[in-house]
Amino acid sequence: MTPHTLPSHIPSTMRAAVLRAPEELEIQERPVPVPGPGQVLVRVEAVGICGSDVHYYRHGRIGDFVVRAPMVLGHEPGGTVVALGPDTSRHQVGQLVSLEPGVPCSRCAQCRRGRYNLCPDVSFYATPPVDGALCEYVAVDEDFAHPVPAPLTAETAALLEPLSVGVWACSKGGVGPGSRVLVTGAGPIGLVAAQTARAFGATEVVVTDVAPHRLELARQSGATTTVDVRSTGLSDTGFAPDVLLECSGVPAVVDEALRTVGRAGRAVLVGMGGDTVPLPLAHVQNFEIEVTGTFRYANTWPTAIALAASGEVELDRLISHRYPLEAAENALTAADRDSTTVKPLVRPTTG
Amino acid sequence: MTPHTLPSHIPSTMRAAVLRAPEELEIQERPVPVPGPGQVLVRVEAVGICGSDVHYYRHGRIGDFVVRAPMVLGHEPGGTVVALGPDTSRHQVGQLVSLEPGVPCSRCAQCRRGRYNLCPDVSFYATPPVDGALCEYVAVDEDFAHPVPAPLTAETAALLEPLSVGVWACSKGGVGPGSRVLVTGAGPIGLVAAQTARAFGATEVVVTDVAPHRLELARQSGATTTVDVRSTGLSDTGFAPDVLLECSGVPAVVDEALRTVGRAGRAVLVGMGGDTVPLPLAHVQNFEIEVTGTFRYANTWPTAIALAASGEVELDRLISHRYPLEAAENALTAADRDSTTVKPLVRPTTG
Amino acid sequence: MTPHTLPSHIPSTMRAAVLRAPEELEIQERPVPVPGPGQVLVRVEAVGICGSDVHYYRHGRIGDFVVRAPMVLGHEPGGTVVALGPDTSRHQVGQLVSLEPGVPCSRCAQCRRGRYNLCPDVSFYATPPVDGALCEYVAVDEDFAHPVPAPLTAETAALLEPLSVGVWACSKGGVGPGSRVLVTGAGPIGLVAAQTARAFGATEVVVTDVAPHRLELARQSGATTTVDVRSTGLSDTGFAPDVLLECSGVPAVVDEALRTVGRAGRAVLVGMGGDTVPLPLAHVQNFEIEVTGTFRYANTWPTAIALAASGEVELDRLISHRYPLEAAENALTAADRDSTTVKPLVRPTTG
Amino acid sequence: MTPHTLPSHIPSTMRAAVLRAPEELEIQERPVPVPGPGQVLVRVEAVGICGSDVHYYRHGRIGDFVVRAPMVLGHEPGGTVVALGPDTSRHQVGQLVSLEPGVPCSRCAQCRRGRYNLCPDVSFYATPPVDGALCEYVAVDEDFAHPVPAPLTAETAALLEPLSVGVWACSKGGVGPGSRVLVTGAGPIGLVAAQTARAFGATEVVVTDVAPHRLELARQSGATTTVDVRSTGLSDTGFAPDVLLECSGVPAVVDEALRTVGRAGRAVLVGMGGDTVPLPLAHVQNFEIEVTGTFRYANTWPTAIALAASGEVELDRLISHRYPLEAAENALTAADRDSTTVKPLVRPTTG
Repeated sequence: MTPHTLPSHIPSTMRAAVLRAPEELEIQERPVPVPGPGQVLVRVEAVGICGSDVHYYRHGRIGDFVVRAPMVLGHEPGGTVVALGPDTSRHQVGQLVSLEPGVPCSRCAQCRRGRYNLCPDVSFYATPPVDGALCEYVAVDEDFAHPVPAPLTAETAALLEPLSVGVWACSKGGVGPGSRVLVTGAGPIGLVAAQTARAFGATEVVVTDVAPHRLELARQSGATTTVDVRSTGLSDTGFAPDVLLECSGVPAVVDEALRTVGRAGRAVLVGMGGDTVPLPLAHVQNFEIEVTGTFRYANTWPTAIALAASGEVELDRLISHRYPLEAAENALTAADRDSTTVKPLVRPTTG
Repeated sequence: MTPHTLPSHIPSTMRAAVLRAPEELEIQERPVPVPGPGQVLVRVEAVGICGSDVHYYRHGRIGDFVVRAPMVLGHEPGGTVVALGPDTSRHQVGQLVSLEPGVPCSRCAQCRRGRYNLCPDVSFYATPPVDGALCEYVAVDEDFAHPVPAPLTAETAALLEPLSVGVWACSKGGVGPGSRVLVTGAGPIGLVAAQTARAFGATEVVVTDVAPHRLELARQSGATTTVDVRSTGLSDTGFAPDVLLECSGVPAVVDEALRTVGRAGRAVLVGMGGDTVPLPLAHVQNFEIEVTGTFRYANTWPTAIALAASGEVELDRLISHRYPLEAAENALTAADRDSTTVKPLVRPTTG
Repeated sequence: MTPHTLPSHIPSTMRAAVLRAPEELEIQERPVPVPGPGQVLVRVEAVGICGSDVHYYRHGRIGDFVVRAPMVLGHEPGGTVVALGPDTSRHQVGQLVSLEPGVPCSRCAQCRRGRYNLCPDVSFYATPPVDGALCEYVAVDEDFAHPVPAPLTAETAALLEPLSVGVWACSKGGVGPGSRVLVTGAGPIGLVAAQTARAFGATEVVVTDVAPHRLELARQSGATTTVDVRSTGLSDTGFAPDVLLECSGVPAVVDEALRTVGRAGRAVLVGMGGDTVPLPLAHVQNFEIEVTGTFRYANTWPTAIALAASGEVELDRLISHRYPLEAAENALTAADRDSTTVKPLVRPTTG
Repeated sequence: MTPHTLPSHIPSTMRAAVLRAPEELEIQERPVPVPGPGQVLVRVEAVGICGSDVHYYRHGRIGDFVVRAPMVLGHEPGGTVVALGPDTSRHQVGQLVSLEPGVPCSRCAQCRRGRYNLCPDVSFYATPPVDGALCEYVAVDEDFAHPVPAPLTAETAALLEPLSVGVWACSKGGVGPGSRVLVTGAGPIGLVAAQTARAFGATEVVVTDVAPHRLELARQSGATTTVDVRSTGLSDTGFAPDVLLECSGVPAVVDEALRTVGRAGRAVLVGMGGDTVPLPLAHVQNFEIEVTGTFRYANTWPTAIALAASGEVELDRLISHRYPLEAAENALTAADRDSTTVKPLVRPTTG
């Protein structure tokens, strides 16, 4: 068994972006973690900033999840394996990896059935009280450090996490060849969902938003039609999708969009927002629409890697800004300051 | 080709229970229909009264469906084939049959895909402007007159329609061996749903209602537990079902019941009520609950017949009252007058 | 109701390629059919030649289907609507259409359930005793004459039939994003299957054959790897597909290919050949492989049209030769004479 | 953390039935295992004898699995938790449990997807080189020691393993309400499969065998019809099942039974036998039959427990003989000596 210590060329401390309180992010010096049995140590080279990071930064909580102690943010990391813990066998030092940010218990009924995203005991990066990956090094279960082939980069590796959200949503929506898909909301997830839907074979993908530059990005991301819903009502488009991927989380949009779904259609509620949204009962009944929530993802990395590596989806175009770790707070506040922000990346070790 | 006339022993006119206006039901004399190509003539021996019949009787409409001309009510008929139209081959005179009350176009995309209940051009009994079966004879497409084996009776044949609602709901809910099912509302559909869930293999079936005698009926119909929600809150039971069969249509019940559904559970919205109901978004997302509407049924008669004929479900216990055709109005008003009403039957020709 | 006669500008007779006996094809003068109720008259502009046409030509039979009377061959037709029969509403004269060659009864249990390809009473072109489409005009149920949008042509319209075979096979095989697929046999169906698998999202498609020029075509049709099985054993490749699309029909290949399928994989037996093939039981059990036959297709035209119209699949590259109707026999014998034959087309009216 | 030692009232050695060589079974004294982290110690009170135990006893191997060192047989154990290892939380001493005999790695792609029965690294009782449960005590992962409620007994707990085989087979076959099922072979698995199919809602279950007393047992186990195939050919029955559960493993039976399956039917190959069986290709294609292998089971214990506890299936009737551990060899040879043997039980600690 390898001893529980770090190789000598790895520093013993590192910088980490720690949320101390709402709107208080501090770069702290912390010990580099020592990988335990079955874990590898990964040097973090790119971390995508997600809306949930911003929400924790602004409000210190998301629903019932409250940041009660200082916590490292960030759950979309890509990087390189730099050391192996005891009892590992799947990696070599130097392997580029994309980290799946939630490690489930692997024992409960949900894990056993392959729905490990629903594991009540999952440990998920940057969900209180678990630290995230906005730091220089993380120790991670080797099974959740997915090897990423050339020519993908650490940046793409980071973006496999939002791609996984898109893959899961399209899977739950039954998107397939010839599908006609409506994506409401052209934020990062909506943009990824649109692109993923095309990779799943959808031949019509309508994307709605209120921001022209986002609709332009949607057109670059595979949307066959875009609708500016400031000027055009959804129902006026006459589009009756087979599948709705609701990515706005706005209750009125949920209601209106569900009413457009065609007979025997499916709707996936991806966007978060509020405790309750209105469900148009008569339409859902008369057309037998299946409405499903989506929570993170399970078993999506192999598909996400295959789609990115084959060029079926292009993730790099989502990156709008890059920041060094010291400027992580700027990455978190970018969305407010600059309406052109799509996906900011923080690069903890490659500045 | 058989001539388009009736055999001489069939009368040329018959009695029919016609809704002329809200709360105006009249027994009229009408011509006995002559079965067209592919149709058979059926003597109607039993017709179940459904909540939708009562709703049309009281209000003259259900949502967008408005009774604009006098219409015969009734869509749960059982009876006997008494004459064959031209180009028929599936029946003999004397065959006991259960009538599937909706005949779809069989050409559209939904029909082609086996979802014929979603056919936009379906012709459905007692849905304006189509006449129903509260009369002595109906002509029907032979393919929708399902032969019913001994020892089933015309009364059971009539009740295969509500059983089909239960079969469809359980199918869409994925009820299976060992399922843990919550049925909210112990009206006729809730009672059938409970019994059907057991036949599908469910080993725990919890039924809720506010009426003690209905809960007693639920216990006789396969419920393993009943909950009087006047005194016990649903969430207090601690029951987290795999499948919710929502049969009340009450918005507050929909919301509360959905919040009890366990991880990866399914919910089927059977009960009608209002245009919009609240959907607990965060719970539906975090637990990835699939919520689906249900509209009538498709391809359910073979299963319903098999379950009834094998004794897996016992439908006769649902019958609370029997009326001759002349007293059809009493059947429609029975629910108001007599709280013990479950399923009233009208017997047009054997009354 | 439109009268049951042809418009004056349509000729009353036409040429048809009739199989009189094995290897006896005759161009005969026949009456132009008058479209019946619900039918349209289509001028046939392109007909693909299929292996089954060649098999009937050579042997006068396929299994239990025996050509006992002269029969027109051809079941892959594209053309233009030139006249409307009574009770039609879906087409206008001039519409380019692709003909689905089998018209089911739409009444039986299989039709009702959406599996109309399994209808025992289907009437299918060029399957004894039903005449096919190697002629100038056919009358067809308007619901099975699928409108084809620009820029697709009559030739592409013809090839939507083999594409449908690919769509059905990939659907039954569960091919999806990131799938790893093995296609055994690079004949026309194997080539279409490879291209379709890519459109379904497969990122690895390995195609095997014994003919180098077919393997070259496979590479042009989306294969990511090709294997010449004259020199390389399948098991030597180490490739363990998620999905096998068996398109050779050769018993030894079926056996060998099934043994390569990975755990929880699926195998679709598309290629016809012999009454019995060997099934490697232990492998199928230990890996829980699902093996399924495929018979024609159901509900595939919408998907096939969407894939062809969006450019996701390119069918024209399959066309290796074009013949006028008079040379139909040459089209049938082309495969023997010229090893570069992939898909010969006959052009009855534009040749 | 609990110390890694046994409580003082547990003996340090125990008796075990060890297969030393084909037809050489020896009762040996072995150390009682000390439960490791996450494990519990179970006193084995009943062990069902399976055909695979008999096969190892007679031949020392099953296919590629060869007994190269002395091995304890038995993989159908029921018993009581008598001690808890460190880091356990799910059981109390005294809990009656049914042991799931295979513990997967819980890390590989198959485990992650919920198909843990296909885990290449599973450790399965009495599969070389893993010792089985024909002994007085076993240490087992607490997650695979399923609590069994009253009034079930240790004997029923043991028989939940063959019930799981039936549950898995019926699940893979899609047996549901109204299904028409053919079970070929009325050995223990066929008998369990027949009973399970009824619990899944099947209303017609035809069982075939060549032994009249087994057919009699089948009638007691839910078969609605039995066929003695010594005198009646399967095809002569005219029965076209929706689902075939092939439990004989005899190649000729596989072929003949598959030919009876109806359109769009499913066939599950449960019975083991030979490397290759004939597959009737044309029938499988023309009827689009889905044929699947089955390997052990995954996630079946909850269903099996629910069905046994609710009385939907009655397992005790399968028990034909009971033996003390010393007579384990008699249990293994019972099938040869006594044609009435169905399921022999060994009772290691309760004699």
